[in-house]
Amino acid sequence: MERAPPGTRRPCAAAAAVLRRPEIPDGELNLAAGTTQPPLTEPELRSLGELGRRWQQAVPGAPPPLPVDPSLRRTGHIPQPSRFTRFAPVSLFQAEGSGDVVATEAAGGEPAAAAPLVRRLRRVALGPPLISSAVVDERMRKLTAMGVLSGDLLSSVAYGPQAMVTVLALAGAGALSLELPVGIALILLILTVGASYRQTIRAYPTGAGSYIVANNNLGELAGLAAAVGLITDYILTVAVSVAAGVAAVTSALPELQSKQVLLGLIVIAVLLAGNLRGVRQAGQLFAAPTYLFLLAMGILIIGGLVQAAGRGFASVPPPHISVTAVLGPLLILRAFASGATSMTGIEAVSNAVPVFRDVQWRNARTTLTWMVSLLLVLFGALLLLIRINGLVPSSSQTMLSELASGVFGRGAVYVFIQAATALELVFAADTAFNDFPRVLFYMARNDHAPRAFLRIGDRLAYSNGIIVLAVTAAVILAAFGGKTESLIPLYALGVFLAFTLSQAGMVVHWWRRRDRHWRRSLVVNGTGAVASGAVLLTAAVTKFAAGAWVVVVGIPLAVACLLRVKAHYTAVERATIPDAATIEPDVGSLARPGLPGLHPAAGAAPPQAADGPAARAETRHLLIALVLHLDLPSLQALEFAASLRAPVLALHVSTEDSDAQRFRQAWDQWGAHVPLEVVVSPYRAVAGPIVNYIEALHAQRPDVLLTVVLPVIKVRRPWQRPLHSRLGDHLRRALERHRGIAVMEVPFHLPA
Amino acid sequence: MERAPPGTRRPCAAAAAVLRRPEIPDGELNLAAGTTQPPLTEPELRSLGELGRRWQQAVPGAPPPLPVDPSLRRTGHIPQPSRFTRFAPVSLFQAEGSGDVVATEAAGGEPAAAAPLVRRLRRVALGPPLISSAVVDERMRKLTAMGVLSGDLLSSVAYGPQAMVTVLALAGAGALSLELPVGIALILLILTVGASYRQTIRAYPTGAGSYIVANNNLGELAGLAAAVGLITDYILTVAVSVAAGVAAVTSALPELQSKQVLLGLIVIAVLLAGNLRGVRQAGQLFAAPTYLFLLAMGILIIGGLVQAAGRGFASVPPPHISVTAVLGPLLILRAFASGATSMTGIEAVSNAVPVFRDVQWRNARTTLTWMVSLLLVLFGALLLLIRINGLVPSSSQTMLSELASGVFGRGAVYVFIQAATALELVFAADTAFNDFPRVLFYMARNDHAPRAFLRIGDRLAYSNGIIVLAVTAAVILAAFGGKTESLIPLYALGVFLAFTLSQAGMVVHWWRRRDRHWRRSLVVNGTGAVASGAVLLTAAVTKFAAGAWVVVVGIPLAVACLLRVKAHYTAVERATIPDAATIEPDVGSLARPGLPGLHPAAGAAPPQAADGPAARAETRHLLIALVLHLDLPSLQALEFAASLRAPVLALHVSTEDSDAQRFRQAWDQWGAHVPLEVVVSPYRAVAGPIVNYIEALHAQRPDVLLTVVLPVIKVRRPWQRPLHSRLGDHLRRALERHRGIAVMEVPFHLPA
Repeated sequence: MERAPPGTRRPCAAAAAVLRRPEIPDGELNLAAGTTQPPLTEPELRSLGELGRRWQQAVPGAPPPLPVDPSLRRTGHIPQPSRFTRFAPVSLFQAEGSGDVVATEAAGGEPAAAAPLVRRLRRVALGPPLISSAVVDERMRKLTAMGVLSGDLLSSVAYGPQAMVTVLALAGAGALSLELPVGIALILLILTVGASYRQTIRAYPTGAGSYIVANNNLGELAGLAAAVGLITDYILTVAVSVAAGVAAVTSALPELQSKQVLLGLIVIAVLLAGNLRGVRQAGQLFAAPTYLFLLAMGILIIGGLVQAAGRGFASVPPPHISVTAVLGPLLILRAFASGATSMTGIEAVSNAVPVFRDVQWRNARTTLTWMVSLLLVLFGALLLLIRINGLVPSSSQTMLSELASGVFGRGAVYVFIQAATALELVFAADTAFNDFPRVLFYMARNDHAPRAFLRIGDRLAYSNGIIVLAVTAAVILAAFGGKTESLIPLYALGVFLAFTLSQAGMVVHWWRRRDRHWRRSLVVNGTGAVASGAVLLTAAVTKFAAGAWVVVVGIPLAVACLLRVKAHYTAVERATIPDAATIEPDVGSLARPGLPGLHPAAGAAPPQAADGPAARAETRHLLIALVLHLDLPSLQALEFAASLRAPVLALHVSTEDSDAQRFRQAWDQWGAHVPLEVVVSPYRAVAGPIVNYIEALHAQRPDVLLTVVLPVIKVRRPWQRPLHSRLGDHLRRALERHRGIAVMEVPFHLPA
Repeated sequence: MERAPPGTRRPCAAAAAVLRRPEIPDGELNLAAGTTQPPLTEPELRSLGELGRRWQQAVPGAPPPLPVDPSLRRTGHIPQPSRFTRFAPVSLFQAEGSGDVVATEAAGGEPAAAAPLVRRLRRVALGPPLISSAVVDERMRKLTAMGVLSGDLLSSVAYGPQAMVTVLALAGAGALSLELPVGIALILLILTVGASYRQTIRAYPTGAGSYIVANNNLGELAGLAAAVGLITDYILTVAVSVAAGVAAVTSALPELQSKQVLLGLIVIAVLLAGNLRGVRQAGQLFAAPTYLFLLAMGILIIGGLVQAAGRGFASVPPPHISVTAVLGPLLILRAFASGATSMTGIEAVSNAVPVFRDVQWRNARTTLTWMVSLLLVLFGALLLLIRINGLVPSSSQTMLSELASGVFGRGAVYVFIQAATALELVFAADTAFNDFPRVLFYMARNDHAPRAFLRIGDRLAYSNGIIVLAVTAAVILAAFGGKTESLIPLYALGVFLAFTLSQAGMVVHWWRRRDRHWRRSLVVNGTGAVASGAVLLTAAVTKFAAGAWVVVVGIPLAVACLLRVKAHYTAVERATIPDAATIEPDVGSLARPGLPGLHPAAGAAPPQAADGPAARAETRHLLIALVLHLDLPSLQALEFAASLRAPVLALHVSTEDSDAQRFRQAWDQWGAHVPLEVVVSPYRAVAGPIVNYIEALHAQRPDVLLTVVLPVIKVRRPWQRPLHSRLGDHLRRALERHRGIAVMEVPFHLPA
């Protein structure tokens, strides 16, 4: 494998980027970024032209000359990058060929000394800006790819078998003899689902997550259900893997037993910080935890088998355990569904086909086969060793730890096994931090999630997803007391919902395509879908009371919310397309039929006699300057408004008649250069009367554009903010629901 | 007593209002309200006139006629009160005589059906608007006043004696024999402080809290320290009284023992809701808990004495208790300081002299004497009964409960005593909710607290104080596990700090005045100050490690913060006074020397050759319309800007060159009616390049007023808000530190 260039993001993110490219045409992706222009259709172009011609009539004459050189060409001096570092700091230069100004990453970064401590801390925590060109086409060898992609899948054996045995143990030691039959059923399930995902790789050589497959083949509802399943999956991957990783550590260090939740929260915090910071590392490093883990498991299994061979593979009878449940079909099914969490992460390869070298899908499929084989070996061997050593679940250590300490004693080998297991589990949790924003990106692309998630180049949007994931996982971990067993029921549901929908989607895919081998593929995927669906149903039914009902009730609710998000975006798009045909032609420009808008239709003719067609352009505006005191900020805002050459009305609010009198005197003393209106508010309310007064003016002349001009004192330190009135915010919020009223703040800066 | 009119606030608030009146001249109070015009001095008037004359030169000619009738006289229709109900809903009418518009409380209230559920709920929670005229001069009879004012003082016997005995018990049963000597010392302390407050009442017949007395006589620092002490006091009054009230209940119902914190939080939540709602009740009702409590204590004491008499007043030996501390002077002092919390609330009468009937101060003094006498009787008798019944502190019930159940058994009488105690304690906590905003009001009047607290007529400001109080008390209650004992050390410090400073202030007062009997008064107050100071020192030293260090360290920090608040307000006042002498005369109007301001001084002459003096007024403005997409909101904002008849520059940000190309094509198709500049941002950042570009324009021509015009999509439901870009907020925050850059939002409303 070639060495990754130093600036690249980690390979998982690279995989996501590569994967995205073939699916999204350039224009669509850029629309996604929320800043640029999609290619316009012919009617849209015609509409724009028509709107432009109307503009000429409404705003005749050449525009006034600009007082500045907008291309910054004449300016020798371009200021230093802004201290505004919540986004990437940039500096500007003029491109050679085009007339555009180009923003680049600031060469020397921001002047650190100038930035206040808080900003500097945030910068340390969030790290340097993400560079979009860093998302490169890094191709991986199969062995490296397997290391990177199989963390989630292989680490599952650290909790999956234990989850199964724990359920069986509820029915007493006798029930443990069912370990092997249930284990064999699980191995068949893994084979079925693995084979099914092999088909998916062939069908979607560009990679396909459950959301995309379900959405494309089964429709929006199924896609959304899969997406919600995935979101649940990622959150619980973090919670379960971290909990299991901590359990691996506390098994070795029992004195940390009581600190499990705290340790789990610390690990999540570290993952959060690392992912916010955007650790950049080469691919090889990310393969390391998996191979360490494989090594550790290999040592454990061989050592265990050698030990067992030493006593002729005689089973150790399990100790007596108290019986708390009746052994019946329901319990066996429950054990089966719990054990099925051993296969979480099996979908990773099919999501990331493009990271492989050519022929991609073939290499990916081979890698998946290897991974599933390894999983089967680990799962089968560990279950066998658990069985012949007669191990039962204990609250003080994991079964892997029991096994390892039984085989090797609590020496260096044991410590290595526990450490490698913990590392692999934490690495598995880390991959969820990469996958979670990615699924939100795909959803946002279909308007199913806030568009902020499209701006993956923007650290802020990316951070939001990461923070949501970390906080939710932390809350769940804490609420369940850091116990893996309690989280498993929820986990199985989310995972198998996504599996089932993805594979059912593949069935539809083959049915529609009917290309070579479609019948065989359909049968394989159909079997996978039925098997996954069976686990899903089993998990939902047998664990309904144990917390699964939250997921069962929550998923439809979440889907309904996502549908409303989409409906909103559709409505916005309909409302904002510049379509000349739907815009009233006789009022100059932009009012829409049926909406009062800024420019009302002819019906609402101005009532003033003086308003001839000539005078109208003059009087369409009214600036309302709020003057609560005759102080500098107010006078400055007043002058700002008056110099815009539109009519200005000064508005004052008094709480008593005597004050109103006094204010009028001061106003006259100043010269009363602007018409003044005083509202007396004996109830001492300020915002209410202002809003009501402006509403009354608006009702009087809905065709006049009212602009409320507010003087706002700008403080230099955040702590000083609560010392000043938040009237501006209140008014903006109160007036924002009125069409034809704009709000403008004129800042007044306190001297340094 | 006359019946209070139905609209009045509860008497405590009325007391606060009456009390305020003689101290604050009308104008000052109105300035306080933050909305009106203070009387101007002669130089200020001259400055205003000078500024007006300059305005005439800068903005020559008559102002354009207004397109509306600002007095609303011509309008038949005035719209319904706004649904903007965070403040009092108002409606407008035209006053008969003056030309002003008057805002009144909406006649029928808001149309409830129209308001969304959330607003309706908030309205139910917050209640109808506060009417300032409801703050009436309600005078109370001595007996009523005592009931209303003594809740805090008398309820203290429910925890004070117990706090003292708990400390002594640390040294084993033998140390309990010190109960009576320490109790006698406390009685002497109560007498001294009580006598001292009698002097305060005579000196400040208009009422005087510790903050005012310390501030007036000892200076700002002492006043602030007293204020911080009072704030601590009120927060801990809520926490301690609620904890003690809950303990009274759980003593009777031991099965609620484990729910103490939860119960405490519920009580605080109820108090919070009630105070936010602003319960209006007549004074008599508020005297009831106190008299019920006195009745209960009377029954208990008489019953106890009768029982004790039955066995010839023979002491019951206390049970053996384990010794955990050495009996020494330090422990005795600690017990003394803990017991001193029995006298919290003794200052209530001196704060509220004006609520009494004439002769006010004489009646107030008599009432204080009654209250102190009652306190002494209760305190002494309860301590005696505790002693002769050999009671020791128990974790499962309060000592009052032990006493009551020992005397009456756990029957109806016991339940009545416990219920009356709990009620009185909750009532005492409730009085803190009235006093806390009041002390913040006094502090804000001296610029020591955010001015928002001056707007006592505004429910929002009042609510802030109440919420802060409730949340802080709840956090403290929860953090200390709902145990009264743990809170007592902190409590004693805050209370006695305020006592000491108040009485030391009185010493200075008498020394300065030297009117009749001043020597005797000085000695009385001096004794009080020394006694309180001794308790303060004792509490600080003996309980330093037990948590008092938080208060000892915290008070200077808090005082420093309050001083900075004052410094900030002073700086703002200096910076915003319209003083013509300090304003550069040759630039028309408002720029200040040394500040670039909106209108820079002559040095920064515009570099453009075309800029003659005539052209200057035309080009002083530049509107920068942000056009991220060529959609309706952007076109509408563009038109809004263009119709203001100032030069307009359209600004677009592309993330790729190809997008920039495509946008320019669409722009040309529209007609390119406005100059356009495109910034290419390959790092996908949007806000950063915009900010930087605008900064560059500003650097080029600092004399031009830049106004950034943002199209903002206004959604109709709060949940839709996160679905849209918050770019406007980001830009506003980023640009607000630049002088000469204003931000204007043009709302685009989605159709219903």
